Amino acid sequence: MKTVVIGSGSWGTALAQVLEDNQRDVILYGIEKSEVDDINLHHKNSKYFEDVSINPSLKATMDINVVKEADVVLLAVPTIAIESICQQIDLLLTKKTIIVNVSKGFHPTTNERMSQVIRRCISADHLSSVVSLIGPSHAEEVIIRLLTTIDAVSLNEEDAIVVQQLFSNHYLRIYTGSDEVGSELGVAIKNVMAIASGILSGLGYQDNTRAALITRGLQEMIRYGMAFGGQQQTFMGLTGIGDLIVTCTSVHSRNFSAGYQIGKENTVENFLKNNKKTVEGVRTAKIVHNVSKANGIDMPICEEVYQILYEGKEPKTCANDLMLRELKREF
Amino acid sequence: MKTVVIGSGSWGTALAQVLEDNQRDVILYGIEKSEVDDINLHHKNSKYFEDVSINPSLKATMDINVVKEADVVLLAVPTIAIESICQQIDLLLTKKTIIVNVSKGFHPTTNERMSQVIRRCISADHLSSVVSLIGPSHAEEVIIRLLTTIDAVSLNEEDAIVVQQLFSNHYLRIYTGSDEVGSELGVAIKNVMAIASGILSGLGYQDNTRAALITRGLQEMIRYGMAFGGQQQTFMGLTGIGDLIVTCTSVHSRNFSAGYQIGKENTVENFLKNNKKTVEGVRTAKIVHNVSKANGIDMPICEEVYQILYEGKEPKTCANDLMLRELKREF
Repeated sequence: MKTVVIGSGSWGTALAQVLEDNQRDVILYGIEKSEVDDINLHHKNSKYFEDVSINPSLKATMDINVVKEADVVLLAVPTIAIESICQQIDLLLTKKTIIVNVSKGFHPTTNERMSQVIRRCISADHLSSVVSLIGPSHAEEVIIRLLTTIDAVSLNEEDAIVVQQLFSNHYLRIYTGSDEVGSELGVAIKNVMAIASGILSGLGYQDNTRAALITRGLQEMIRYGMAFGGQQQTFMGLTGIGDLIVTCTSVHSRNFSAGYQIGKENTVENFLKNNKKTVEGVRTAKIVHNVSKANGIDMPICEEVYQILYEGKEPKTCANDLMLRELKREF
Repeated sequence: MKTVVIGSGSWGTALAQVLEDNQRDVILYGIEKSEVDDINLHHKNSKYFEDVSINPSLKATMDINVVKEADVVLLAVPTIAIESICQQIDLLLTKKTIIVNVSKGFHPTTNERMSQVIRRCISADHLSSVVSLIGPSHAEEVIIRLLTTIDAVSLNEEDAIVVQQLFSNHYLRIYTGSDEVGSELGVAIKNVMAIASGILSGLGYQDNTRAALITRGLQEMIRYGMAFGGQQQTFMGLTGIGDLIVTCTSVHSRNFSAGYQIGKENTVENFLKNNKKTVEGVRTAKIVHNVSKANGIDMPICEEVYQILYEGKEPKTCANDLMLRELKREF
């Protein structure tokens, strides 16, 4: 069974190394010559992991034709690149392939979840099924083989188990799941909560406030997820509360860091002017705003983040506005 | 409406200050002359809050007779002291009083929850009802008025609302709840998870592993809570996931710190020899072990913590033993 990992960024590299550690047949495809050379010649990916030596058996390539022979293709690219990469590889695939998604967010204009985008762009005779491999997992920790657990979520249970068996080892434990809607909405929306968590930290709030945010944020995620057919219990698992915690409490998170800067400066201005990185939660906040308005779903925390990012509302007033809502029962 | 706060420790002091800030009639009762004097003379409680000035209107006393006039008595003492303090004040109370519990754990020999202990020890004609005021709340943050949210949980909704109105202000937001079993079991068992989280950190594990622990730990708490009649949704709230997060991720937590030392040294020996503080999770681990065995409830994380604390198992082997369980579906 041959796996091609598309994308030589941090998560693609970490997951390709997992397969190499498991002595699977894997190759990593990248478009940056410097990254591909770094992996092949120096067994490093210095851009993302400065001092880490990668398994020397791992090979990278710039030739996309490697997907022709693939049984499994893992897409480790930003959400905005999923559609075009799927169109590109669909022309090359020669058999029914398991496509593994690891991106967390929505299509920028259609609002589709990642699995929906992939199913739309890969023709039926090239697609066994989509498996989302998602959960609380900073690449920086997986690359140094620190104990991590994630979910392999698919409408096709057999393929989920194939992916589970492929990736599981002594430092990466994979659970399977079938609630594609709940899992993919959970990992997407949690990026908005991570921005909110960063904003609060930047403003000087500490652990109690963050715990409140995560708890109330989880309720929003459940409300949104269930409105689209997700199951409540999924949000209590790795793709719900698990991924929410790791993103809301970690300096590794780009979404948290973006929020932190915004909170610290008490304005979104500099962030918008200078940011050059992919911060998925920024786009997600807009989609959640539009979709929740259109469907009448109450999302007070996401709405404050949207107001800060897109309407110039002052971060300091947001925490107060959330706080001064009417006293009520928790549930 | 007159409130007496029993216990001039960190949480008692912080909650008494909340009432003083809200211009309620409140007095703080303590047994340590140094603490009582510090509050009255210097407007400080230096033992717990080194550099913090307390609201100068707050008064403390060593005369337990103040409870005679109380409409509300808040017990801010360790779990092992709840029974004796209840027996003491029951002799003094003159009318039906709301007893507010803020302790998180079990009676050391009967295994009762705190509300059960209080109902057993306060005679019916002195008790309006028990309200547990619990949630994610480090005293160190409430004393400096950082945004915090907690629950007022009671079988008596009217009294829960009284407590909610009494304590709520611009930095402390109180929700009401009625699932006494779920809420009190949640805040108790989370202390065992906090020890586990500290152990993992001490062993060198990072964010991914902690997120896994919290997620799987929540499942254990739900299993235990539902076995005794708690409601699943309670565990998704402030007294479940909220309190779990704050205790598992914060240096303020004694339970986390205890675990950290044990993990760092890879043995429980020094901790048991030298610890002089109340670490509620240590006692709770034993009770959860006994009760879960007797009732056939699967608690793998709590069990590993019990094995480390009471059976001398090596912390390092525990994470591995948890990790190498059979691959399966998440739910």
